[in-house]
Amino acid sequence: MRMYDIITKKKRGEALSDEEIRFFVNGYTAGDIPDYQVSALLMAIVLKGMTAEETAALTLAITDSGEKADLSRIDGIKADKHSTGGVGDKTTLIAIPIAAACGLKVPKMSGRGLGHTGGTVDKLESITGYKTQVDAQTFADIVNKVGCGVIGQSSDFAPADKKIYALRDVTATVDSIPLIAASIMGKKLAVGADCIVLDVKTGSGAFCKTLEETEALAKAMVDVGRLAGKRITALITDMDRPLGNAIGNSLEVIEAVETLRGKGPADLTEISLAIAAEMLYLADMGSYAECERMARAALGEGRAFDKLVEMVKAFGGDGELLLDTGKFERAKYCLEIKSPGVGYIAHTNTERLGVASLLLGAGRQKKEDSIDYTAGITLYKKTGDAVKKGDILAVMYCNNPDLFIAAGEEFLAAYTIGHNPPPPSKQIFGRISTKPL
Amino acid sequence: MRMYDIITKKKRGEALSDEEIRFFVNGYTAGDIPDYQVSALLMAIVLKGMTAEETAALTLAITDSGEKADLSRIDGIKADKHSTGGVGDKTTLIAIPIAAACGLKVPKMSGRGLGHTGGTVDKLESITGYKTQVDAQTFADIVNKVGCGVIGQSSDFAPADKKIYALRDVTATVDSIPLIAASIMGKKLAVGADCIVLDVKTGSGAFCKTLEETEALAKAMVDVGRLAGKRITALITDMDRPLGNAIGNSLEVIEAVETLRGKGPADLTEISLAIAAEMLYLADMGSYAECERMARAALGEGRAFDKLVEMVKAFGGDGELLLDTGKFERAKYCLEIKSPGVGYIAHTNTERLGVASLLLGAGRQKKEDSIDYTAGITLYKKTGDAVKKGDILAVMYCNNPDLFIAAGEEFLAAYTIGHNPPPPSKQIFGRISTKPL
Repeated sequence: MRMYDIITKKKRGEALSDEEIRFFVNGYTAGDIPDYQVSALLMAIVLKGMTAEETAALTLAITDSGEKADLSRIDGIKADKHSTGGVGDKTTLIAIPIAAACGLKVPKMSGRGLGHTGGTVDKLESITGYKTQVDAQTFADIVNKVGCGVIGQSSDFAPADKKIYALRDVTATVDSIPLIAASIMGKKLAVGADCIVLDVKTGSGAFCKTLEETEALAKAMVDVGRLAGKRITALITDMDRPLGNAIGNSLEVIEAVETLRGKGPADLTEISLAIAAEMLYLADMGSYAECERMARAALGEGRAFDKLVEMVKAFGGDGELLLDTGKFERAKYCLEIKSPGVGYIAHTNTERLGVASLLLGAGRQKKEDSIDYTAGITLYKKTGDAVKKGDILAVMYCNNPDLFIAAGEEFLAAYTIGHNPPPPSKQIFGRISTKPL
Repeated sequence: MRMYDIITKKKRGEALSDEEIRFFVNGYTAGDIPDYQVSALLMAIVLKGMTAEETAALTLAITDSGEKADLSRIDGIKADKHSTGGVGDKTTLIAIPIAAACGLKVPKMSGRGLGHTGGTVDKLESITGYKTQVDAQTFADIVNKVGCGVIGQSSDFAPADKKIYALRDVTATVDSIPLIAASIMGKKLAVGADCIVLDVKTGSGAFCKTLEETEALAKAMVDVGRLAGKRITALITDMDRPLGNAIGNSLEVIEAVETLRGKGPADLTEISLAIAAEMLYLADMGSYAECERMARAALGEGRAFDKLVEMVKAFGGDGELLLDTGKFERAKYCLEIKSPGVGYIAHTNTERLGVASLLLGAGRQKKEDSIDYTAGITLYKKTGDAVKKGDILAVMYCNNPDLFIAAGEEFLAAYTIGHNPPPPSKQIFGRISTKPL
């Protein structure tokens, strides 16, 4: 088998076989196939596409390129969730304890934030003492006892994805549905849960800006999961505005706590409940309506909040911070951003809001950057809200007041104020699943 | 300017600007842009194409990447010819002395053979003493005195083309009309003649197997020439059978001599005259009919043959070999290939005939391979000829009889014998030019 022939085949728009896909993934990971051949193939994939079967084969080759989690130590059906990334997305901190409080096992491995999007590992590390790296046995013990656990994904998982992604990042070959689907699912399948709920974001703060491409990505990932024998649902959810009102690590943990105490923003509450209910439903814990009622009850009765506290403590985190969020360290400086005009918030460029938070120190431009857990933004006005001139749109937090200038500019550039309210939007645009409702 | 953005633009099918094309060609040649970004761009070019203006910009960037010939030392209008490569193609040795005998200046820089195609430099080097590398002043002096000169193209010409071609060769990005056109024309423009005749081969022995793609390549090259301010004609000529009957270096020189003495095969004579007449016509030496008559007279009166002898002697070659071709060294061994059946030669896979000659030692598989000037094949039956079982199809020549086995198999696999004669074909399929007839 020759890489040259594989490139030629894809260049002609033909489907690659499982063997051909494994040949290039394994050869590239091992360093036997040079970057320049792989980048030519990646460009051919971007422009010619891949079938569902090819995407599944690529996904499994990526999964098999590294270590995998051994979930056999965890009893019962295991569920997982994954978000394609957004601004203010703290649903993991809410949906997972809800599902665990309903009796499901949720061993979750999360990532860190990069660019305008946040990551659950960073959010958890804003809780003093929380260890996001533990050995496999400890992780299994905690999930068996608590019902849920969140740690960072091991760097030994899916090395092929790391190498391929790094090459895509410098060769303009990121924007390909099959490549994105295989990258995400390759890591998910290395975790190995039975049931997977994908929260596929759409809109100005998401990777996929249009509903059409979001649906294509969601379908591609569900197809991969189906072909890999998983129960899987993709929910297409709104990221044309931030989720909830808090952006930034400890600010988001605090908002997650408020939500688990029943006092969270409606959008965040609704999506978190939908994800939790979907996890229960895929795990055959009842009809969808029953699963939704169970999730709502776990939230309303405080059992989900208790689960989060229990989980945080199990990983060494300071549970007192959750019981009294006033004890979280706060940023030294804050700045109110006031409305420059009157009318309605017609639109927010949510990616720019994520960038504003990043510029305050809450995120990373490069993987090596350190972050400020206390930095971020609390929104007081979101898309659709009426504003008067001088109304507080948001408060920014950081530990270096010089950062307010660039972040404030970015923030204001993200807001569009119009004369009329925008048409109402939805939280959930669609559901693609191996299990019908 | 960033290479990433240039790749993105081409991936989307947009046209690159002159500046963007120069940025990547110069950056890659200088080693500032890595292989993996260039191969991604090349694949995007293969799949999305390039406009005539982009192709011209790429060509000029390739030309400008290295040294250029200084033809100002040569008086009058300078003409050049180029063949896209074939089997048995010795037209340079015939057309150039014809044009020179008619008073045109033809300073020509040729290549070596690679794969199934031969190269004029190798053929000339089969003449004892012929120096294919001389300094610029010597070259100009010879062309001024004799009217024509053929040397090897300097390795300092078009270094960008060498680097880009080497990358295309391993990334399955060779088969792109704009990339092929820019590669050929980039080197041609570095020579800098005023008039260029391209002999664009089509058929089983050519790079372009179909007339449609041959026409596209011819048009692309003529467009580049026009945009670069040249007078240029592309003749689309038959390479679905070898040109003439001789394949192999000294065998081809001998056939060229016979042709210049009026005893050559009709196909070779006709195409050589057409190329010479076209060079004269582009140089405004008369109407096309007049130019054709001039060419035919130079051939018929033996003046073109005298010119070839004069040129060979000027470059140090042994002119006696041309005056008495029986003095050429001959291969030690020969083998007759007999027809295995009766009927008509329905088709010859001409590329395979070139490979058979290569296997006898007449060509190179890799650039570093040495060649045997005496090896090759003389054809006695070509497409359309009637054959009886046992008729001699060809005689093979080489200095190692072991080579006859593989070469003989390749040869016989190239011949298809049928019951009926194939429809007659043409020598010249088309003409694309900046100057109408």
